[in-house]
Amino acid sequence: RIDGTRLWDTLMDMGQVGPGIAGGNNRQTLTDEDAAGRALFQSWCETAGLSMSVDTMGNMFATRAGEDPDALPVYMGSHLDTQPTGGKYDGVLGVLGGLEAMRTMNDLGLKTKHPIVLTNWTNEEGTRFAPAMLASGVFTGKHTQDWAYDRVDAEGKRFGDELKRIGWLGSETVGLRKMHAMFELHIEQGPILEAEHKDIGVVTHGQGLRWVQCTVTGKESHTGSTPMPMRKNAGRGLARITELVHEIAMKHQPNAVGAIGHVDVYPNSRNIIPGKVVFTIDFRSHLQDVIDAMLEEFYEKAPKLCEDIGVSLETEIVGQFNPPAFDETCIAAVRTAAETLGYSHMDIVSGAGHDACWINDLYPTSMIMCPCVDGLSHNEAEEISPEWAAAGTDVLLHAVLATAEI
Amino acid sequence: RIDGTRLWDTLMDMGQVGPGIAGGNNRQTLTDEDAAGRALFQSWCETAGLSMSVDTMGNMFATRAGEDPDALPVYMGSHLDTQPTGGKYDGVLGVLGGLEAMRTMNDLGLKTKHPIVLTNWTNEEGTRFAPAMLASGVFTGKHTQDWAYDRVDAEGKRFGDELKRIGWLGSETVGLRKMHAMFELHIEQGPILEAEHKDIGVVTHGQGLRWVQCTVTGKESHTGSTPMPMRKNAGRGLARITELVHEIAMKHQPNAVGAIGHVDVYPNSRNIIPGKVVFTIDFRSHLQDVIDAMLEEFYEKAPKLCEDIGVSLETEIVGQFNPPAFDETCIAAVRTAAETLGYSHMDIVSGAGHDACWINDLYPTSMIMCPCVDGLSHNEAEEISPEWAAAGTDVLLHAVLATAEI
Ligand SMILES: NC(=O)NCCC(=O)O
Ligand SMILES: NC(=O)NCCC(=O)O
Repeated sequence: RIDGTRLWDTLMDMGQVGPGIAGGNNRQTLTDEDAAGRALFQSWCETAGLSMSVDTMGNMFATRAGEDPDALPVYMGSHLDTQPTGGKYDGVLGVLGGLEAMRTMNDLGLKTKHPIVLTNWTNEEGTRFAPAMLASGVFTGKHTQDWAYDRVDAEGKRFGDELKRIGWLGSETVGLRKMHAMFELHIEQGPILEAEHKDIGVVTHGQGLRWVQCTVTGKESHTGSTPMPMRKNAGRGLARITELVHEIAMKHQPNAVGAIGHVDVYPNSRNIIPGKVVFTIDFRSHLQDVIDAMLEEFYEKAPKLCEDIGVSLETEIVGQFNPPAFDETCIAAVRTAAETLGYSHMDIVSGAGHDACWINDLYPTSMIMCPCVDGLSHNEAEEISPEWAAAGTDVLLHAVLATAEI
Repeated sequence: RIDGTRLWDTLMDMGQVGPGIAGGNNRQTLTDEDAAGRALFQSWCETAGLSMSVDTMGNMFATRAGEDPDALPVYMGSHLDTQPTGGKYDGVLGVLGGLEAMRTMNDLGLKTKHPIVLTNWTNEEGTRFAPAMLASGVFTGKHTQDWAYDRVDAEGKRFGDELKRIGWLGSETVGLRKMHAMFELHIEQGPILEAEHKDIGVVTHGQGLRWVQCTVTGKESHTGSTPMPMRKNAGRGLARITELVHEIAMKHQPNAVGAIGHVDVYPNSRNIIPGKVVFTIDFRSHLQDVIDAMLEEFYEKAPKLCEDIGVSLETEIVGQFNPPAFDETCIAAVRTAAETLGYSHMDIVSGAGHDACWINDLYPTSMIMCPCVDGLSHNEAEEISPEWAAAGTDVLLHAVLATAEI
């Protein structure tokens, strides 16, 4: 068993880096806070005797050597970047739980046939630079590195420039590594495990996703002196599409979700009718045909809703992945670990996207989930109990050891 | 008659200060650009032999002496601050048209019984610091100066601090001046004069206004892993209220308008359901009972629309004035000037709020409007013709001279 107190202390130490405004964290990718979090993690890895390598996407790989020089490594890990108003566990638990697993192996003097590698993937959240899971996406060939470098944040800063600026542009070519298997521990970010009183979620599938960025164009004009019939109010396009997205998702729930999280209104002045609104819709389902049906209904209805009020709509897909089905052997390793350790468990679908979803396309992968209070995540009030964190990390350790062959 | 070419050149020179991104201006109040515009205006006033005084709200008063030491001055003027994506004429025409009138009086060696004062009112637009017409509001006792100083912009900067920073905190106590009369020349900012082929709008009334700032509070959570029934999406509150505001205004049009121009979504991340949205509704009518009816319907329906989707609504009035009726004598002076000069004219209601609306509460006031292309304003593409500008300025000159008694 891992050391739950040491794990919790480590989580709390990382929570000091890039504090939020309400007890959580603002450690967005490629900020100075991200750099500080990486440096702290690196120092912990060094102390644990792991060797660190950083690739050209800033992904960090900390290796514990194996006994068989020909054996491919078993990977674990997640991400240390957070939302602008993020929690202390989303992603962080998967990285620092992996570190705790490494420390426990050291304490017990365990030797494994396969090397074990702990990863911190760059820009999982995708808030500052869309899309999410950017660096694991480049690693697995979904995007080219050049395209990723050219992503810009809201201030127009390039991903490639910011990676260099914070000093975490590594020299290892991205994507050359081969994996024997990969396990990602993560908080559920939903309410199911807590409601079902289960310690462990054995993740069998994930949701697919489409991020549809919409630009509604009307005409900027004076809110006071423009007669009602002459208005082309782009804000009404946003309003109508907000409700359309909700209706479409509701038709398919509990097998789908949909909402708009990001909105920019131009020029955003109290006495100017919005001339342009840019926003991104997030549609998800673990069923491919549901994703397709939602998109079809959206593309059929949204332009008409805009046309009816004299504004125009342009759309662009700025993030997408199809529903992953995780590897049966890896899933079994997780389930067996939970059973051996005596933790209650259930099979579950991941509501969120994770780096593991990308890796799963190339190498045997699965995920371990632990509950979080009220299912709340992407909120500074995100909370888990030390016992949940310890149980998930125990299962991670055992699944990895079984796969890496003691 | 005034010198139309000189007037136009002066307008174009001011348009160089704080250029926008599409041919207009971004010379928001109390920015460095505003300071530069003020300095240019001051230098022009000095050259014209006017004496300048600045009050503790940054209002600029340029005086041309009169012959009777006991006669109260006749005022003219408007504002040099602009919207973030503003035009070159909104406000500016009233100030620089006033300057051209002064220059013409000088050219003709005219002497008037009453002194004539040309004013640049601080923060008419109200975009950076709500409400609009802030400094004329303090001048006329609608707000206290302390309250005005404490207004903050989106970055949390205080009005009082910014006024000092840009170097335009004057020493004259605000509001002590008494006026014989006040005339404001302004572009219509609406489509009526152009459609009716009139050179001059004789402004008899203005619209009253209510700015209702709304805060919709839901719960930040993950767009992927939060089941639909558990969501408290503040963005849907915005959507429903956007449409409600439109419906309410449509019921009363052409006697009312309503829209939402300013929206801030928190935390504004693609994969976070908005936990809070703050936005401001702008309701207007020239009929007090219509304003009251719109507000009543809004307060009756909006909280329910929010409650139905599990979000809460708080509202605050952040700007208000009642529909002004301008002074009969001043209105007649404008109408007579237009007739004497042979310009086509019609009576009109001002769709926008103006400093003249505040002054009108204390002193005899009216306004002169000239057409603008397509009724477009609060848009960098705002346009007027040199002929329209000259006609409006001619009428201003004649109305002021008649009132100041040559
Ligand atoms: N786990 C997580 O929140 N990932 C961000 C990508 C997503 O929106 O699902
Ligand atoms: N004239 C003008 O645009 N004034 C700003 C105040 C308003 O919104 O009416």
